Amino acid sequence: MPEHVDSTTRPAPVTIIGLGAMGTALAAAFLAAGHPTTVWNRSPAKVEALVARGALRAGSAADAVAASELVIACVLDYPALHEILDDAATDTLAGRTLVNLTNGLPTQARDTAAWAAKHDIAYLDGGIMAVPPMVATPAAFLLYSGPRDVLAAHRATLGVLGEVHHLGEDPGSAALHDLALLTGMYGMFAGILQAFALVDSEGVSAASLAPLLSRWLTDMASSVDFYAHKIDSGDHDSDVVSPLAMQATGLANLAQAGRDQGVDVELLAPLYDLMRRRVADGHGQGDVSGLFELIKRGSATG
Amino acid sequence: MPEHVDSTTRPAPVTIIGLGAMGTALAAAFLAAGHPTTVWNRSPAKVEALVARGALRAGSAADAVAASELVIACVLDYPALHEILDDAATDTLAGRTLVNLTNGLPTQARDTAAWAAKHDIAYLDGGIMAVPPMVATPAAFLLYSGPRDVLAAHRATLGVLGEVHHLGEDPGSAALHDLALLTGMYGMFAGILQAFALVDSEGVSAASLAPLLSRWLTDMASSVDFYAHKIDSGDHDSDVVSPLAMQATGLANLAQAGRDQGVDVELLAPLYDLMRRRVADGHGQGDVSGLFELIKRGSATG
Ligand SMILES: NC(=O)c1ccc[n+]([C@@H]2O[C@H](COP(=O)([O-])OP(=O)(O)OC[C@H]3O[C@@H](n4cnc5c(N)ncnc54)[C@H](OP(=O)(O)O)[C@@H]3O)[C@@H](O)[C@H]2O)c1
Ligand SMILES: NC(=O)c1ccc[n+]([C@@H]2O[C@H](COP(=O)([O-])OP(=O)(O)OC[C@H]3O[C@@H](n4cnc5c(N)ncnc54)[C@H](OP(=O)(O)O)[C@@H]3O)[C@@H](O)[C@H]2O)c1
Repeated sequence: MPEHVDSTTRPAPVTIIGLGAMGTALAAAFLAAGHPTTVWNRSPAKVEALVARGALRAGSAADAVAASELVIACVLDYPALHEILDDAATDTLAGRTLVNLTNGLPTQARDTAAWAAKHDIAYLDGGIMAVPPMVATPAAFLLYSGPRDVLAAHRATLGVLGEVHHLGEDPGSAALHDLALLTGMYGMFAGILQAFALVDSEGVSAASLAPLLSRWLTDMASSVDFYAHKIDSGDHDSDVVSPLAMQATGLANLAQAGRDQGVDVELLAPLYDLMRRRVADGHGQGDVSGLFELIKRGSATG
Repeated sequence: MPEHVDSTTRPAPVTIIGLGAMGTALAAAFLAAGHPTTVWNRSPAKVEALVARGALRAGSAADAVAASELVIACVLDYPALHEILDDAATDTLAGRTLVNLTNGLPTQARDTAAWAAKHDIAYLDGGIMAVPPMVATPAAFLLYSGPRDVLAAHRATLGVLGEVHHLGEDPGSAALHDLALLTGMYGMFAGILQAFALVDSEGVSAASLAPLLSRWLTDMASSVDFYAHKIDSGDHDSDVVSPLAMQATGLANLAQAGRDQGVDVELLAPLYDLMRRRVADGHGQGDVSGLFELIKRGSATG
């Protein structure tokens, strides 16, 4: 009797191109899940630690592509990706699937999808919503856009990295959402750094502020839904719980504290300017969500 | 046999001065908890709804103060508080406790504590870490600074509003921490607004981004502890999972997407400038926490 092999549960081969902080975490996750994992990086030194853990070394990008039907790229930016995918690698990709997890612009994702179509490459664009230590933990989620059937074919393998979110067939959609989420995060980081600088100026350590700050930011992340509703309706002046004029006073206090304490508070200056403009426009009793109207597409004041 | 009355569980009388969005929520919370609640506001109209729910009306700030041993003030700013506390109200406050939950500067809190000491008023300064609908829910927490025994005497009553955090005897400490937490929140709000504007420019509603954004911000709020550790140690270049040069590339993508889509992305421009300066200083492989060194007290470049 022949040995029974269930091919649907045997981990599929996968190739990782780019072994920076993130690509290394991706390759390590596939190795840990038992996938035959081929790796390639511009600087060869970064390959060694993964090879020691069982990864297969490829001599060129084309060789790396040849090793697996599923090729995942994660490099600095799209120009780097297109440098790596020389003629030989591009020819080898024909008939295979390229999942590009490099951060970029929606236009770059769409252009790369068009390039892939021309070369008979099945293409998914994606964004990783995790820092490297979060990869393959329950906290990680990834955004994908592109053909539904291509994602379906590789869903089990891609699921190793984190929760799979499909944002539709427009190849630019994952990049757009990724960039938006990063934007939210960078605003939060700016606020965090400014908060630490403020208490530091009175000799309070970051560690002693941290538990209060992470609790408060987690609580206030719920404002996202509250403001989404106001932004979609365009009504920022009903059901206001935190009047803008009061909030502008709070931000003015920050600016004054910065002057008093010798701390640079420029990080939040543009927000304060927008608040003042909105108050001057007669929305002092309205909500902070109204600032959206001053920055959205077509809002430029000339 | 006389009726047994346990005076420790009978809700203590409390006076609320200032009935804006927040003062109204505070008074409503005390009424709901059964405290005899006396209210006063500069514009008398805001008193009516609370009186209908059982609050006691005071004809002047001094009358309001006379009604309770514990007086809680929550107005726009410290100058407004000092306008309200005219000679009669100040004289009446002697021997009583004033808990000031108005947002302000550490210096204003310290000056007000000195003023209170001069007038024999027990004084606590505080900050409310909640929006009005959160008051008296498990999510709300409040920061207090000032004498430990004064807080202990009123802890049960103040606990009605939310979790009590005592930050020590320096009266400026609550204001400092409050301002720092608000700063973190405002950074997050700037990021949220910018994120919504970005997806809006491609016709994506705020509601469809919101679940991803609140999940991501909640995940990333854990960076607070990670960065606190780096900031306190001063070492931003070890154990880096998200190299600054890579992050600067991500923010440059945001700026480019803004130009492509006609969205104003000025809110994050100062962060991007700091990143570029830090990369130029040779920390491209370091962590974003290193930007702290460029804004902290005494960092001014001339
Ligand atoms: N780290 C994170 O927290 C994180 C989180 C989410 C998403 N991401 C995204 O993941 C992607 C990679 O980030 P990372 O953290 O791994 O960055 P990184 O550590 O700076 O690594 C950059 C990678 O890109 C390669 N590269 C750069 N320029 C190249 C070129 N011209 N030709 C060929 N290869 C080039 C580098 O190769 P060498 O080794 O030869 O320099 C390296 O493999 C980025 O798009 C980033 O936005 C990162
Ligand atoms: N709302 C929130 O989300 C929130 C959250 C945390 C902390 N806080 C803090 O709570 C405090 C009050 O905020 P709020 O939301 O209640 O603001 P608000 O709705 O704008 O109310 C402002 C209050 O201050 C009074 N006031 C202003 N100027 C005055 C003056 N010169 N003399 C006498 N009274 C004056 C107003 O009286 P009139 O009614 O007569 O104008 C009103 O009672 C602020 O320090 C704020 O930072 C608010």
